[in-house]
Order: sequence, then C-alpha cells, then structure tokens
Amino acid sequence: MTYKLILLRHGESEWNQKNLFTGWVDVDINEKGVGEAKKAAEMLKAEGLLPEKLHTSLLRRAIHTAYLALDGCDRHWIPVSRSWRLNERHYGGLQGLDKAETLAKYGEEQFMLWRRSYDTPPPVLDKDAEYSQYNDPRYADIPADERPQTECLADVVVRMLPYWESDIKPDLAEGRTVLVTAHGNSLRALVKHLDDISDADIAGLNIPTGIPLYYELDDDFKPITKGGRYLDPEAAKAAIEAVKNQGKK
Amino acid sequence: MTYKLILLRHGESEWNQKNLFTGWVDVDINEKGVGEAKKAAEMLKAEGLLPEKLHTSLLRRAIHTAYLALDGCDRHWIPVSRSWRLNERHYGGLQGLDKAETLAKYGEEQFMLWRRSYDTPPPVLDKDAEYSQYNDPRYADIPADERPQTECLADVVVRMLPYWESDIKPDLAEGRTVLVTAHGNSLRALVKHLDDISDADIAGLNIPTGIPLYYELDDDFKPITKGGRYLDPEAAKAAIEAVKNQGKK
Repeated sequence: MTYKLILLRHGESEWNQKNLFTGWVDVDINEKGVGEAKKAAEMLKAEGLLPEKLHTSLLRRAIHTAYLALDGCDRHWIPVSRSWRLNERHYGGLQGLDKAETLAKYGEEQFMLWRRSYDTPPPVLDKDAEYSQYNDPRYADIPADERPQTECLADVVVRMLPYWESDIKPDLAEGRTVLVTAHGNSLRALVKHLDDISDADIAGLNIPTGIPLYYELDDDFKPITKGGRYLDPEAAKAAIEAVKNQGKK
Repeated sequence: MTYKLILLRHGESEWNQKNLFTGWVDVDINEKGVGEAKKAAEMLKAEGLLPEKLHTSLLRRAIHTAYLALDGCDRHWIPVSRSWRLNERHYGGLQGLDKAETLAKYGEEQFMLWRRSYDTPPPVLDKDAEYSQYNDPRYADIPADERPQTECLADVVVRMLPYWESDIKPDLAEGRTVLVTAHGNSLRALVKHLDDISDADIAGLNIPTGIPLYYELDDDFKPITKGGRYLDPEAAKAAIEAVKNQGKK
C-alpha cells in the first residue's frame, strides 16, 4: 500500500506582496494568489490526483486557497478538518513589520537568524499588540500558557507533529488522498519530518506558493522518493529562487 | 439553556436564474447569489450572531454560499461537516428541464403536484441520464439501493432527519451557534420538523435564498418562537412572494 499526500502552500497573500512579516495575521490571498490556487486545481485535475480529504490551518489565506483549488477540480464537497497546528509560524514581534526595513535595521545576520535558524524565535509579541492574535476566539481552545506569542521552526515542529500523527496519518491509512493546505513554515516542518532533514539543512529548504507538492508514502509513512515531486517542477524551481531573495526588495 | 440555529438557503444559482429544475445538479451561485451570500455575512455580523459550527450539503451552491457568508463575518475558520442528507431534493426526471416549459407541457395541476405535494415524487431519473448523479464519486458511500433517483419532500424528511439527530443536535447541545447552509427543500424539511407543520401545510411554506433564518430552540430543541426570525424580514417577505410565482416566467 502506498499513501497519497499533497502539500499546498497558499497562493501569494496581500502581505507576501507588500513584503511584510505575516505569521498569524489573517490576511487574504491577492489576485495573483487566486490565480495560483486555480492553477493548482488544474494541475490536480490534469494528474487525476483528486483529494478525498482536506486539512487546513485556521488562516484565511490557506482556507481560501483550498476552496479554490478544490472547487476547480470538482472536489469542493470532500470532508475538511482544520487546525491551528497547521498555522504559519507565529512571527512574534516581527508580525506586521516590513522585511526590507527589518533587514536594514537589524542587519543580515540577525535577520537571517530570525527567518531561517531552527531554534531562535523572534521577540515575543505582546498579548495586546496590534498584530497579536492572543485573544482571537479561534484560538480560545489552546490553553493560555501554550498559545504562541512567537515561534521558531522547532516550535512549529513540536506543535504540528501531534496533528500529523492524530489526524493526517489516520486519513492516509484509510487510503484517502489527502490534501494539506498550509504555510511556508508549517509545511517545512512537515517536510523536515517526512524527509528526515537535519536541523541545519532545513534552513536551505523553501516551499513556493501555489504549486502542489506530491508525496507517495510507504507503509511507514516515509517518502518513496525523497523530496516528493512538484506538479510543476520548473515553476517550483523558479519560485524557490524568488523566496530565497525575499527581504532584498 | 437556549440553542442557536441559523438556516441559510444558498444564494441565487445559475439555474434559479435560468428557471430550470436543479435538484442534485451541481451548479454554482451566480453574481446575484454571491451578493446575497455577502449580504448574509453582513447581517450575521450586525446581529453579532457568529456561527461556531457549519453544516452544509455536498452541493457547490451551498458550499460557496457558506464560504462567502463565513468569510464575510470572519468565521471562515470554524469546523465544518458536510452531508448529502442536506442536499436539495432530488428532482428525478425533471432535473435540467425548464420550469415554464414543464408547466406548459404537463399543466398546472401536475406541475404543482411535483413541486409542492408532500409525497408525489417526479419520474425516476435514469442512472446514466445526462443530469444523473448516480455514479458521482461523492455519493459512493450511499448504498446503491438507497441512492436517490427522484424524491418527494417526504423522502427528504426521511433522509434529512437522521443527520439532524446525529450531527446537528449534538453540536447545538454543546452550546455552539450552528449554521446550516442548504437548499429550499432540505430546509423546508427541517422547518417542518422544528415547527411541527402538517404534511398539508408545508406546501405553502417557501424559504427565500440568502437570508439567514434564526431559530432559538428550547431544551427540547423546539422553537421558542414558531417560524423563527429572518434577519431581514422585509426582504424575506418579498422573496417568498417571488418564489411562489416561479414557473410563471
């Protein structure tokens, strides 16, 4: 038995475009993002890779992307589970800040440490700050002392993996084709786990927006081909380069 | 304890506009329907009536309406359950036919019998007919001999009520504000049950598209005010008149 898993990072968001740190701020996808999501639908349809179960984060840009990607391949009706555990990394005190300004202000070393180091979180975001989600009702079920106010990638791995185990794996085990629509860092956390990437090497891994990444998994839920396969490999390659250059506006 | 239940019929669909019998044919909402769904969101927001759980049918016009209604009141992230049991009545052999032509061809008596009698289903739709959904993968879980090929309202009551009992009532019992986004006839079936309307009297009840109908229910899940309350009562009244005149294009 092989299992079918499709990972999809949301289409370009209003804040990707503005080059702001987003994290848990609930911005929508922009017009380009809408186009990416619809194109993802076409790729799924062309491959005959039709999702039977959807998992999303609680953020609009992932939910909207999933809606369009499924609608376009006639799978709008499949069952859905949502979890904050698939949310983007909480960017703490960086949320709402301009990436280029932050780079200029703190210098490349600190900037890259916050963006790509495995275990250095940005400063904590105050509970009542403008871009805090601490009191958002959608997170009311997270115990107050576990509700993130900043996260490094290691934190994302820790809060994402339990959901992979408890909710995604069982759906795969039932033989369902699973679509996970999430974010740059929650998907990096998952790919790190699947492909067994070291804490150091994960820094070099970027996931482009809007291009389905398909994994076939073996009985142990390990990839049959390491790294999976982007349904549009050339677009993925170009987009990965672009992600690397973010902040250098 | 009172329970909060919001019923919402999908916004105007491409086939409402064309005056065709739709049933299980999976058409989308049109531009007017999109506007209705967004307006429904505004009403929910204005009333502070924010859904905490969504139930939809498996049909695009209900799913799209729910997406827009929830997105507009910032509730896109709530948990969702979907079921074919909330689908529109299966219109059998009438699916895809023009309402005015059908009226002209069969006469008012037969036409109204199919549209509004409680227990007279339209002719069975052949499994392989153009507008049949018999082999649609989304209904694969329904045992072959229970998969509808036509339905009268009584049939809808019989297949809808188990879902009300097993899935919607438990969510209400947990104190959640529940939104049910469905169809003219699946909602008529539910309202018949809630308001204890006779098989004869239900013929006179129409539910307009896109206007949230709010019920507060008591401990026995019975309406505190019979008939509930439309969040825009005047628009509802006008729309109900218009529904009555359908077919008289």
